[in-house]
Amino acid sequence: MKPVYRFNPAFQTPQGSPIRELFKYTQQQGMISFAGVYSSPALFDAEALAHSGAAVLQESPTACLQYGATEGVPALTEALRALTRERTGGKVTAENVLVTTGSQQAFELLLRVLVGPGDCVAIERPAYPAAIQALRLANADMLEVPSDDDGMDTEALEKMLLAGARPKLLYVVPTFANPTGATLPLERRRHLLELAVRYQMLVIEDDPYGELRFAGTPQPLLLEVAADVPGGDDWLVYLSSLSKIVAPGLRIGWMSGPAEILRRAVIAKQTGDLCTAPWMQLAAARYLRDGCLAKHLPTIIATYKERCEAMLEALQQYFADTLEVTVPQGGMFVWARWRDGTEANALLQQAVLENVMYVPGSAFYAGAADPARLRLSFATAAPDEIRIGVTRLHAAHGKLKR
Amino acid sequence: MKPVYRFNPAFQTPQGSPIRELFKYTQQQGMISFAGVYSSPALFDAEALAHSGAAVLQESPTACLQYGATEGVPALTEALRALTRERTGGKVTAENVLVTTGSQQAFELLLRVLVGPGDCVAIERPAYPAAIQALRLANADMLEVPSDDDGMDTEALEKMLLAGARPKLLYVVPTFANPTGATLPLERRRHLLELAVRYQMLVIEDDPYGELRFAGTPQPLLLEVAADVPGGDDWLVYLSSLSKIVAPGLRIGWMSGPAEILRRAVIAKQTGDLCTAPWMQLAAARYLRDGCLAKHLPTIIATYKERCEAMLEALQQYFADTLEVTVPQGGMFVWARWRDGTEANALLQQAVLENVMYVPGSAFYAGAADPARLRLSFATAAPDEIRIGVTRLHAAHGKLKR
Repeated sequence: MKPVYRFNPAFQTPQGSPIRELFKYTQQQGMISFAGVYSSPALFDAEALAHSGAAVLQESPTACLQYGATEGVPALTEALRALTRERTGGKVTAENVLVTTGSQQAFELLLRVLVGPGDCVAIERPAYPAAIQALRLANADMLEVPSDDDGMDTEALEKMLLAGARPKLLYVVPTFANPTGATLPLERRRHLLELAVRYQMLVIEDDPYGELRFAGTPQPLLLEVAADVPGGDDWLVYLSSLSKIVAPGLRIGWMSGPAEILRRAVIAKQTGDLCTAPWMQLAAARYLRDGCLAKHLPTIIATYKERCEAMLEALQQYFADTLEVTVPQGGMFVWARWRDGTEANALLQQAVLENVMYVPGSAFYAGAADPARLRLSFATAAPDEIRIGVTRLHAAHGKLKR
Repeated sequence: MKPVYRFNPAFQTPQGSPIRELFKYTQQQGMISFAGVYSSPALFDAEALAHSGAAVLQESPTACLQYGATEGVPALTEALRALTRERTGGKVTAENVLVTTGSQQAFELLLRVLVGPGDCVAIERPAYPAAIQALRLANADMLEVPSDDDGMDTEALEKMLLAGARPKLLYVVPTFANPTGATLPLERRRHLLELAVRYQMLVIEDDPYGELRFAGTPQPLLLEVAADVPGGDDWLVYLSSLSKIVAPGLRIGWMSGPAEILRRAVIAKQTGDLCTAPWMQLAAARYLRDGCLAKHLPTIIATYKERCEAMLEALQQYFADTLEVTVPQGGMFVWARWRDGTEANALLQQAVLENVMYVPGSAFYAGAADPARLRLSFATAAPDEIRIGVTRLHAAHGKLKR
């Protein structure tokens, strides 16, 4: 007899995530992937990380191997405070820091602490799929705020609020958003924070890509702008991660924000995983303290710049009339839209036969999706591969249209 | 104006956990602690771990530093399968394994997937405090099953089930339980699994200490017994961890069990932390593959044996008439009870003045506590310190009684 388990009805197992489904294709021989958020392995600063990992274990074996405080090991929280000061031009000292097992955990801890079933949470439309997934599992009611090439449309948000929407939380990637690559200009940043204060809506600024700028003018973090908006810093939690600027395998993310919220997040993390691997924390702290990030980051940025340009050029060459493209100033993504009625899901089936892949836009919508949208990542493939990949995409597109 | 956050009402911030409260005392100069589950730093196999960590990063930098599959890196899941075969005398091949960020995460993933507010979950009385805490945060209805020197009283459990209790889950540490140190005999193991099948109750066997046996006869894991009870393996999830036998700082735990349950736990982990730090996973896999655990474990066991004996002797010398003591065959804990009406909480206040500490029994009860109970850990202090600690406890006890 097959056992019948009584699962938690509130834990809705989602339909196979479209991105998970794509994983099987990434293993295909010769595949060129525009799907991943995986940075190129060549960009890992493995030697410096090996040195950091070995040095801290040699110097403080007990601190590396024992349980650590849930909040994070002091050497890392101190280094993250210094990094925050740097990112905000010395303006913000993150007094309260919680180290998390990637920033994904930070987001989920905030949901546990703040969001009950049916609570309203505002997100961008389109938005980061793992955020949508976490909100689904939390049974949150998602309010999709339209966005354009300048990120979330805060005027549209204000109209929704005036019409009575009362999101507890608003989740946003203000710089080089996933999937759109868009960056919120200063006026929208200020507007968003004014709305947060007025409507007592906690803004979660997720900033995994902010340092990956290769064009345009830097915008201040919401975290920095919040310091200038009266009451702003009461309504902002800042999340970031070493995944895109050092290595995802360390699983080091963090949050900073109001003490009352972080205190609860610490309790949720205690029952979650007690603490993030102290050895990894100390290795990361050492890496930062030794200035390795500052030394290595220009290489990552230059590489992404070159790759982005290769992709934009190739897309222009093959799809000038058919594909509308958002030009990013940093990050990992080109967000695009077929002008000729091509459906991104249908094209993907043909594309994998040609050994190229991407993520159809449908993955990024909580509600109804725009079927013509797709996200092309330039993070993983080298410029030559990118050019070949785009010719393959062209071939697939041609075959689909026949 | 102070901001008023709208927290999730279902996330009940617990009153300061009694064990957390004790942390401040552990920092006190000269403190001898019987409170911790921290093994002595001297027991960490730091050199071999340094070698493992360096070797895997050298050989597979990308696998260490990139995101890994949520299920765990193949080298580690394979090593954990081998370890499971060893622990069950070749009887059980754990087909489905999920690597977790400590076994604490494994337990919480199971709660997310299975337990909604008000669902009934059976635990031992007394039980592991972090399990109680996680169940509180999940708003579960806890059914406390009495236990004695042989662990959970399965006859009492059967009576509860006959009387209509319908726990979805039963959480148990069958070998060297925390706090009692008790080990479930074979008949109770079999009985428990028969009840699990009969009442469709999923048993979570948490086995962090099982390999730390220094006396008595080994008992088969519930996991092994389940293979002999018809339908048993449908109703058992096995959790274990490298925290107590290698090092907690790696944050490596795992679960194995029915595919349908693990599949959902993988989805919950995806939104939780994506994956456990691959570098730590690969280092652990290498450590296991190289036979370092087998080489080092006898040292840990011999050390705990010596410390346990030192503690039992000293307690016998100073408290023969006043303290009732459970003699463990392994693990880290001596569970005790004052015969003279001493309250463990009151004594602790006096004890910290004498520079010795322990955990009052009240931390281990979901419901009403026995105030005369206390848990003494022999994991952290060396035999000489243990003897000094017990004389200090004797002094504190004398002063309290005056």
